[in-house]
Amino acid sequence: MSDDRLPSWRPGRTRDAVLAFLAAAPGIAPRDRVACFDNDGTLWCERPTYVQLDFFVDVLRSRADDPALAGVPELAAVLAGDRATMGEMGLERIALALLGIFEGVSPEHFTAQVRAFMDRAEHATLGCPVRSTTYVPMLELVAALRALDFTVCIVTGGGAEFVRAVSHDLYGVPPEAVVGSLVDYDYVAEAAGAGGRVRPVLHRTARVSGVVNEGAAKVSHIQTHLGRRPVLAAGNSGGDREMLEWTAAGEGPTLALLVDHDDDVREFAYVSSAESVQEPELILDVAARAGWTVVSMARDWETVFKRLSS
Amino acid sequence: MSDDRLPSWRPGRTRDAVLAFLAAAPGIAPRDRVACFDNDGTLWCERPTYVQLDFFVDVLRSRADDPALAGVPELAAVLAGDRATMGEMGLERIALALLGIFEGVSPEHFTAQVRAFMDRAEHATLGCPVRSTTYVPMLELVAALRALDFTVCIVTGGGAEFVRAVSHDLYGVPPEAVVGSLVDYDYVAEAAGAGGRVRPVLHRTARVSGVVNEGAAKVSHIQTHLGRRPVLAAGNSGGDREMLEWTAAGEGPTLALLVDHDDDVREFAYVSSAESVQEPELILDVAARAGWTVVSMARDWETVFKRLSS
Repeated sequence: MSDDRLPSWRPGRTRDAVLAFLAAAPGIAPRDRVACFDNDGTLWCERPTYVQLDFFVDVLRSRADDPALAGVPELAAVLAGDRATMGEMGLERIALALLGIFEGVSPEHFTAQVRAFMDRAEHATLGCPVRSTTYVPMLELVAALRALDFTVCIVTGGGAEFVRAVSHDLYGVPPEAVVGSLVDYDYVAEAAGAGGRVRPVLHRTARVSGVVNEGAAKVSHIQTHLGRRPVLAAGNSGGDREMLEWTAAGEGPTLALLVDHDDDVREFAYVSSAESVQEPELILDVAARAGWTVVSMARDWETVFKRLSS
Repeated sequence: MSDDRLPSWRPGRTRDAVLAFLAAAPGIAPRDRVACFDNDGTLWCERPTYVQLDFFVDVLRSRADDPALAGVPELAAVLAGDRATMGEMGLERIALALLGIFEGVSPEHFTAQVRAFMDRAEHATLGCPVRSTTYVPMLELVAALRALDFTVCIVTGGGAEFVRAVSHDLYGVPPEAVVGSLVDYDYVAEAAGAGGRVRPVLHRTARVSGVVNEGAAKVSHIQTHLGRRPVLAAGNSGGDREMLEWTAAGEGPTLALLVDHDDDVREFAYVSSAESVQEPELILDVAARAGWTVVSMARDWETVFKRLSS
């Protein structure tokens, strides 16, 4: 097929499958044109560490002399760079402890901190700003979908507010189209002087709201948050399995895309397993059985990143 | 002021306040142009009963010979029209029991049921289809905001999926911009024949997810769901108080609109109290103290409904 919408995709079966879906899209009812993209490892680089974790650690380091933080074992291990202890604790426990850094902070302050970090953060090994580690071929796909009047959404295991702080600038996705893991908020209406007027404030808590947005929760949250079943879903890991299954099983044209990180020259090479439904197996094996479209980063993408200079 | 955007609003202080906000809107940063409207009693008529309750009762009646439903005391009282018992039980308990009617149903089926009901439902006293009980002046305001690139959202105490089933047709609002009360979903991936392929299904449960979307929860849910603080909020009852306070307290131009149902000729006349923060008081008194813009349906609206024939 000849098409100028996906210049960074190499000709081949993968690109043909994506173009075939785009060709079929005008036949999909406009209100069903919903596409859901995972973020980490699907729209941008997630190695060697999640960007959100880098951000949390950056804020923690800036407050390293706060005894209330240094006294938390998980945070002390992060500050000391004690990888052995961190490995024993596990990422989830450490991430929950890191949420405590932002307890009581306003949403606006949190967003400002994320944006300030993103303005200056450099990737650990790629020699470029973190904000330029988005995948050009996926940005082209997002643009092609938007030209077809798709509502493009991000469905991430990461924090909703972290991704929302950058989703418009990076992907053109407004905050309400980002479904992520959430913390609870406390609304406090403080009395402000005479006359009974109030000065309302909204504070972040360190409590996770509901369940983390991975696996089957991604499907439930798509329903509760977006209210529409996607006809296109893209992911790269076991946490995306159910979202891809749910999308692929829909009526009419659908596209389930799985990004395979097999490019240790331009990005990273690693495998993900899917353990949320049955016994652990490689997500690539699930994809093969289900007939999803697997994107080989090494073979299918002519360009990975837009620019590699700061 | 001369302006042709609000033809159903009568000249006066209220219309002037709305027009002043619209005139200031171009000075608001595009990403802050978010407007949140309550639904029942703000965008459409909520008397003599909530439309969603009428829908629930309609579905219940169609299944009146189902012993599993008739054996539930709350549902039996509804089916018998036993107002004394219903009054003792209270609306919240009855509404929770009515959720049970839809347990196990797919979201698509629920949406189809709502739309079928809305296609034929007649208002109890106004002599018109329920779908034509939206307020024309509010539709004009929504259109004016959209012309200024506002993201127009609905923040309702009602069920998110009920409102989403009609929000695009009635107001042009997509499902992801509707924040409402939610039920939990169960995702089940059933094995389907050989080869290990799955047939995934999503089922409604009868469990309310988190807290009902009223009062301070409206503010928290605006943050978790929409991710942006509105600069315009419109409501009509105590359940909208915090959303209006939160909006009015923002920086830059804001507009907090309270619809006063004082028109027993064209609609209904009733008062609402606000009890979520302090001791109960009339929401009109809260509005007066806070300086919100109160919309008198009787005085400020030239037209209330678009058409009154079926």
